[in-house]
Amino acid sequence: MLSFINDYCEGVAPEILKRLEETNLIKTVGYGMDEYCESAAEKIRTACGNEDAGVYFLTGGTQTNMLVIDTLTKPYEGVVATVEGHVNTHEAGAIEYSGHKVLTLPSHEGKMDAKELKELLAGYYADDNYEHMVAPGIVYISHPTELGTLYSKAELQDLHAVCAEYKIPLYLDGARLGYGLMAEGTDVTLEDVAKLTDVFYIGGTKVGALFGEALVFTGWPMPYRFNTMVKQHGAMVAKGRILGLQFDTLFTDGLYFKLGENAIRTAARLKEGLKEKGYTFFIDSPTNQIFVTVTNEKKKELEDKVVFSFWGNIDEDHTAIRFVTSWATKMEDVEELIRIL
Amino acid sequence: MLSFINDYCEGVAPEILKRLEETNLIKTVGYGMDEYCESAAEKIRTACGNEDAGVYFLTGGTQTNMLVIDTLTKPYEGVVATVEGHVNTHEAGAIEYSGHKVLTLPSHEGKMDAKELKELLAGYYADDNYEHMVAPGIVYISHPTELGTLYSKAELQDLHAVCAEYKIPLYLDGARLGYGLMAEGTDVTLEDVAKLTDVFYIGGTKVGALFGEALVFTGWPMPYRFNTMVKQHGAMVAKGRILGLQFDTLFTDGLYFKLGENAIRTAARLKEGLKEKGYTFFIDSPTNQIFVTVTNEKKKELEDKVVFSFWGNIDEDHTAIRFVTSWATKMEDVEELIRIL
Amino acid sequence: MLSFINDYCEGVAPEILKRLEETNLIKTVGYGMDEYCESAAEKIRTACGNEDAGVYFLTGGTQTNMLVIDTLTKPYEGVVATVEGHVNTHEAGAIEYSGHKVLTLPSHEGKMDAKELKELLAGYYADDNYEHMVAPGIVYISHPTELGTLYSKAELQDLHAVCAEYKIPLYLDGARLGYGLMAEGTDVTLEDVAKLTDVFYIGGTKVGALFGEALVFTGWPMPYRFNTMVKQHGAMVAKGRILGLQFDTLFTDGLYFKLGENAIRTAARLKEGLKEKGYTFFIDSPTNQIFVTVTNEKKKELEDKVVFSFWGNIDEDHTAIRFVTSWATKMEDVEELIRIL
Amino acid sequence: MLSFINDYCEGVAPEILKRLEETNLIKTVGYGMDEYCESAAEKIRTACGNEDAGVYFLTGGTQTNMLVIDTLTKPYEGVVATVEGHVNTHEAGAIEYSGHKVLTLPSHEGKMDAKELKELLAGYYADDNYEHMVAPGIVYISHPTELGTLYSKAELQDLHAVCAEYKIPLYLDGARLGYGLMAEGTDVTLEDVAKLTDVFYIGGTKVGALFGEALVFTGWPMPYRFNTMVKQHGAMVAKGRILGLQFDTLFTDGLYFKLGENAIRTAARLKEGLKEKGYTFFIDSPTNQIFVTVTNEKKKELEDKVVFSFWGNIDEDHTAIRFVTSWATKMEDVEELIRIL
Repeated sequence: MLSFINDYCEGVAPEILKRLEETNLIKTVGYGMDEYCESAAEKIRTACGNEDAGVYFLTGGTQTNMLVIDTLTKPYEGVVATVEGHVNTHEAGAIEYSGHKVLTLPSHEGKMDAKELKELLAGYYADDNYEHMVAPGIVYISHPTELGTLYSKAELQDLHAVCAEYKIPLYLDGARLGYGLMAEGTDVTLEDVAKLTDVFYIGGTKVGALFGEALVFTGWPMPYRFNTMVKQHGAMVAKGRILGLQFDTLFTDGLYFKLGENAIRTAARLKEGLKEKGYTFFIDSPTNQIFVTVTNEKKKELEDKVVFSFWGNIDEDHTAIRFVTSWATKMEDVEELIRIL
Repeated sequence: MLSFINDYCEGVAPEILKRLEETNLIKTVGYGMDEYCESAAEKIRTACGNEDAGVYFLTGGTQTNMLVIDTLTKPYEGVVATVEGHVNTHEAGAIEYSGHKVLTLPSHEGKMDAKELKELLAGYYADDNYEHMVAPGIVYISHPTELGTLYSKAELQDLHAVCAEYKIPLYLDGARLGYGLMAEGTDVTLEDVAKLTDVFYIGGTKVGALFGEALVFTGWPMPYRFNTMVKQHGAMVAKGRILGLQFDTLFTDGLYFKLGENAIRTAARLKEGLKEKGYTFFIDSPTNQIFVTVTNEKKKELEDKVVFSFWGNIDEDHTAIRFVTSWATKMEDVEELIRIL
Repeated sequence: MLSFINDYCEGVAPEILKRLEETNLIKTVGYGMDEYCESAAEKIRTACGNEDAGVYFLTGGTQTNMLVIDTLTKPYEGVVATVEGHVNTHEAGAIEYSGHKVLTLPSHEGKMDAKELKELLAGYYADDNYEHMVAPGIVYISHPTELGTLYSKAELQDLHAVCAEYKIPLYLDGARLGYGLMAEGTDVTLEDVAKLTDVFYIGGTKVGALFGEALVFTGWPMPYRFNTMVKQHGAMVAKGRILGLQFDTLFTDGLYFKLGENAIRTAARLKEGLKEKGYTFFIDSPTNQIFVTVTNEKKKELEDKVVFSFWGNIDEDHTAIRFVTSWATKMEDVEELIRIL
Repeated sequence: MLSFINDYCEGVAPEILKRLEETNLIKTVGYGMDEYCESAAEKIRTACGNEDAGVYFLTGGTQTNMLVIDTLTKPYEGVVATVEGHVNTHEAGAIEYSGHKVLTLPSHEGKMDAKELKELLAGYYADDNYEHMVAPGIVYISHPTELGTLYSKAELQDLHAVCAEYKIPLYLDGARLGYGLMAEGTDVTLEDVAKLTDVFYIGGTKVGALFGEALVFTGWPMPYRFNTMVKQHGAMVAKGRILGLQFDTLFTDGLYFKLGENAIRTAARLKEGLKEKGYTFFIDSPTNQIFVTVTNEKKKELEDKVVFSFWGNIDEDHTAIRFVTSWATKMEDVEELIRIL
């Protein structure tokens, strides 16, 4: 059976596996203090065009979001996100578990509007009772968003300017960053992300790693005693080398970008095929998530041949479904999918 | 340079690496719902002699300790541990971060005394002010302990009986369980651990895995909505298959025990060598951690040739140091170490 | 200068002060175990028509909301409230500080709609990913609401039925309950509140007490070791007698209702005066909060003579303001206010 | 029946009650922004000899301890206290609930030793693994201690010097400060406390107030947005005036010290009587708590005539019991107690 259900279904990019083998019995120190982590950090700094960036490796997205928000805010501060932001919906309350409120703004196809952000921030300080309210302490966006959409450079600049005005960090969740950077038509590069946000993470789990996210501090210093807080949150990895090795490989010879490109190329072919067959798109996503409207009948028919996600009910007869391509998607599987659509 | 600094210096058992390669491009569902996890859980149930055991895979020790204690206790309960217990010393306050106090008992070469435990529990309920105090809600021990020592079966039975009397779970931290089970002279088997504790974890990180701990619930049910709480603590792994694959391999053909045995065999040779050379032991540990008293002069001399841990100052002229063997230790390195001692 | 800014501007009902004097040097045990607390609890049980109700005295509203939500929910559960609910807006993140998310529904003049609640609850359980989401664990409403509006008996019945269906408690914040119960035209009595919610609090701070809220458990048991959790949250009062004495007095000879009635009577006269003068109401509140639309010019003029609250900008020329009456409001002050309006 | 069980058995000093009456219907703003709070703060600043001190009023001891420790420390820091410190024993885990570990030192009749404190702090920074440990972030002492003993000025100077060296605040819990300051033979004044600690609180609940503690920041700034964090912890009092009025009265004409003196004078007479009757003291406390060793027989006999506390078993035949005098203790009751001893 075909599967287009998600981008974390396979193992790991073969280049990484090879590297794990080659270095397997070499002894290193633990807790991410090893040479592989340092080398990976250095390569990421270079790729970001910021030699002073702080780089830290963590294992997963929720863990990274929780740690960034919890350690960059004061206990009385919350995080601003859209109502559809991952931190507001699918993290089982991890942000609140660590004591912080998610202050919500409307979602515009997954994106936050800089004007609405400014109104929220201005409104907080204008309120007579602001001392009885949660202070906005950090802004969370994702790129690509949960709906696969992308910010333009101008939009990032606007959000960044508002954050700078209110002296709070702009944090970008890059769980699928590799796919966003390789999307056709985007004017946002990795260097732009590094310049236009204060802290962000480069997603590994969904872009070819076994697991792992590279957290990068550019416009904001890494919190003091970050190591201790990572440990305190149960997020420290004894054999940190595995994280270092993976990102060192991903940032050698542009592997990260090549993996991203595969997902974009296969997604483009799939979209083309869908258009040819007359399907309409639920959301026009430029990345590796494709949202299509299908009849309920068609949906049932497809379920026998391919694994995909249910996204939402449109009306009595129609449903929105999602196909996802990835670093590992084979073009032949896409062609097969198009055939049966 | 030789290194006997710890048991998480190398990568992973070659058998596991091979398995990762073989299965790399097979697609599975995420979050530990895949067939490798299920197979691993089944093999662990069999090895534990308990077909009803709940098995869950997590990435590290602090994370596992935090989750077990936080989810098996009520918000007003704390965990009883010895003053040297890992949860009381080297977890950066992860237990308190999740809201629970560590109630301490004396350490007897790392071990908890059942009588002292009973006194603490009885004392709590006898106190007129017990409503103003932290209720003891779970008991934490490690096996091997932080000092490499082991409980006897009788000692475990006594602790378990006290816990049963007070209706609180006995939790065993098995970060180095493989080494404990293979120690010479121990009368405690994996089946005993499963019977004489309520929940415990089988350490992978220090016994041949890339990372990973297998949490096993035998005498106590897995907490309701454990998955949600794992996610909420930032501990869920998208590609859970990697954890499943590792433990499935570790529990195939007794690999876990073979890996444990290598550390014990090399440690035994090292102890023999140390004895022959007239060294005295700081603690008589039957497992893979060896604590020796050396003169400060000798310590300085050794530091040029081998990496080891400083353990504590004995007197003005003497220091306790620690050597650790592991699943990956080569006998030739031990012989070389003995030569230079 | 006149003041209609809030209902906690004066000290305490004279009947309570007298009682404090009479009993001042009598010795009692501490922590709310005294006879005054027991007597007050008994009178509240009678007034609620529920002899099995659990009654507990706390000092303030935020403290009570935080404790109820934190102790009646599991760590992975959140509280459902309207976007305007006090727990979502003006409690400085106390709910999130204690680890719980506020799951929001639209506000209909401050009120929650039973249908929308049902959709939220049903939607949670219907979601494939519900294990990655915050579970709805309790429902929070206030009566009167933050906008001074009231639920009808039928509306409470509907909300209660939905909660019962999903087996989660309905919690009613009665910070201004006395004013709600005495409002003209309401069909909700204290006995109804006790029957149609699972837990609620009778507000003292805003209805004639120095401070204090009486928390009442009717449809749900008081959490086990509630005392310990009260202490743990820093909410226990050593001289609990003061809370007992106040509520014992408030529930003697219907004082609580008489105090409520004064606020309603003076508010009614104020509304009459406002209508006569041609003012339009921003919200039609039947209780002691009166929301009026005024020109900005008039607002400025009034500010020299009376203290009131700014509520919001309507348009360029108009503003919504709020006047509040209370248990202590003198009719002569209302007449004076009407004169200058 | 006589009662010497505690110092929070009666209501409030009559001078305060009178003041509550006189000001009862005066309208003030809420949340401690009123003139009574400001006047009280000013009087406390003067009494402390520090015109720049930050003063804040809270309702109880556990609440104050929790807030001070939680807001003056970083999330990865803990509080150093003796094993007998109130924060380590009788606060139901409030400190851990707010995320912080209590790092313990031995208790010397309730007191902390400056040398041992220095060793703990130096040891932390000397440890190779300090990043995996809880950082000591504040030091907690009480004066009088839980055993009624007092620090000398020299001892406070030593503790303060160690804290200054390590740049962490010294916090003094003054739940019974009034009794400590009036003890015979003490060389510590309120001005000394203000100089030799960084933050402390002047206990009202046990020294004549209905409830309330005055928190004073002298050597350390009040945390930014303290108001918000007070609200977030559920500790804000709407009618803050009641706290202001009480402390304004306590610090008018030396009332606080007179109330303290009554307890000391009656305790002195009781000790004299006990000595005359040949009793031996379990601890030699110079304040209002008197710890006596009695035969079990005598204890049983006394229980029919006087209420006191059981303190601990000495041997098979003897028990330590505690008598407490207070601001409200009548000398005639002491004489009566002596008669029946």
